[in-house]
Amino acid sequence: MLDLQALRALATVLREGSFERAARQMHVTPSAVSQRIRALEEKLGCVLLVRTSPVTATEEGARLYLHFLQIEVLESDLARDLQPLGDAASKRGRSIRVAVNADSLATWIIPALADFHARSGDTVALHVDDQDHTREWLRSGTVFAAVTASAEPVAGCRVDPLGSMRYHALASPAFQQRHFQGRDLQAAFAEAPMLVYNQKDQLQHRFLRELLGDVDPHPPVWWLPSTHAFMDAARAGLGWGLHPLPLVVDDIASGRLVDLSPGHSIDVPLYWQSWRLDSETVHTLRACMLRAAEGTLQQ
Amino acid sequence: MLDLQALRALATVLREGSFERAARQMHVTPSAVSQRIRALEEKLGCVLLVRTSPVTATEEGARLYLHFLQIEVLESDLARDLQPLGDAASKRGRSIRVAVNADSLATWIIPALADFHARSGDTVALHVDDQDHTREWLRSGTVFAAVTASAEPVAGCRVDPLGSMRYHALASPAFQQRHFQGRDLQAAFAEAPMLVYNQKDQLQHRFLRELLGDVDPHPPVWWLPSTHAFMDAARAGLGWGLHPLPLVVDDIASGRLVDLSPGHSIDVPLYWQSWRLDSETVHTLRACMLRAAEGTLQQ
Repeated sequence: MLDLQALRALATVLREGSFERAARQMHVTPSAVSQRIRALEEKLGCVLLVRTSPVTATEEGARLYLHFLQIEVLESDLARDLQPLGDAASKRGRSIRVAVNADSLATWIIPALADFHARSGDTVALHVDDQDHTREWLRSGTVFAAVTASAEPVAGCRVDPLGSMRYHALASPAFQQRHFQGRDLQAAFAEAPMLVYNQKDQLQHRFLRELLGDVDPHPPVWWLPSTHAFMDAARAGLGWGLHPLPLVVDDIASGRLVDLSPGHSIDVPLYWQSWRLDSETVHTLRACMLRAAEGTLQQ
Repeated sequence: MLDLQALRALATVLREGSFERAARQMHVTPSAVSQRIRALEEKLGCVLLVRTSPVTATEEGARLYLHFLQIEVLESDLARDLQPLGDAASKRGRSIRVAVNADSLATWIIPALADFHARSGDTVALHVDDQDHTREWLRSGTVFAAVTASAEPVAGCRVDPLGSMRYHALASPAFQQRHFQGRDLQAAFAEAPMLVYNQKDQLQHRFLRELLGDVDPHPPVWWLPSTHAFMDAARAGLGWGLHPLPLVVDDIASGRLVDLSPGHSIDVPLYWQSWRLDSETVHTLRACMLRAAEGTLQQ
């Protein structure tokens, strides 16, 4: 079996981002940390870390890190059964890594985490990426579980449907008046500034294709990679865009934002994918995620 | 001089992320786009694009893209002077790239962009990164301007102070009661779950160093890479963390969040850095940013 101390050194360097910080946390010298990892690299015959700042994992390093996380989760289950409740010492510094999309984080993830923390006492380290790209985080072993747009399981993972996030095309009343009033839709959408989350976000383009067919207008674009900035920009009249319904119900009800195409929404199905591991912690996290999603997403 | 059509092809591929999408926007074939860029690469003797999905720029490609952006900004100034106001055709698809930190985006950036859009009609493409890392985006030529934590100018850029973002260490009243009531601060902070934005965020560690000296406790950690998720998590009682004052004044006033160390805050000075270019657009953007920051940040 692999040397657990060496695995722990690898994991700590990746969590802390440097050999110095890892050494401080492990109460050893940086050179001891470095030696343990080098021994592991020699034994396995591959490089595990990219020595940049912060230090990152090679593909092999990430796989090994996942292996360490799995052992850690299993040990934590063991500790829960063996130790008096409330003894948090064995959990110090451990967080379960999960990748989520930004709109989920802005709506139902925090309640799910609160529920999970109340039940397990554990904390979670979140990574945020587009729902079409969180699968890569899972595949590379960087995270333990992910909210994905794909129902196709990553090898070694199980998949649960979470429901669908519903999106509406919204803008401020002043923006609608200025750009859409009395105009042909195609002409209006070719000229009205459009909000886009980032380069990976294809939701607005998909909406335009569904509405206008194969026209592909190229309006002026804002890139706003934050769910709340996206809403703030819509309220300020900077552009139109597709917003997650749970966050904008009040804005629609109060007339602060108006639906540019009433009756037409886009549903994005989401899935919970996690590494198969018979662990109480993983089961609890999954149950909390499914429950919180059920209350927010379209079923 | 370099062929402008080839530069435009390079820029369009980088904006759209693929040769196919760039070709559609330029109304030519993907192979025509590819040929123009290859000719540029042969002339300059270096590779400009990494042919991944999405396509990204090499260091040389990024520098060339910046060059194209500079020409585009200068031409847009020219167009504004030569064309009747409101003719947006020449601006189609162009956005000025700017890197900002998440907490600025959540507070004063959207008002600044609204002001800028009203004056110039231009749109902006935002990249979000830690304020200690936005300088890299500027140096690599990926962005035209950035909110940075460093007053030291990137070569070729000018620097303006924006003021300081003030941070307070906050938690929910229930969290404070559970973890801090009647306890030694050092013992409490070693055990109370801590909110951290991401691996780059050192603000909580800095706060602990200032408060406790060189103790370096390692409490359980949440990673929550979103300004609003950070606040939602604090309100839900998941952990303590440093929050930007402009976003939490109401929470503090209403008692929804409490200050763990009243009278002790951390000020993070921010700067506006932008490429030196005698352009009306760049001047307007700078003026709007400085004005909006002045209303929100500590001067």
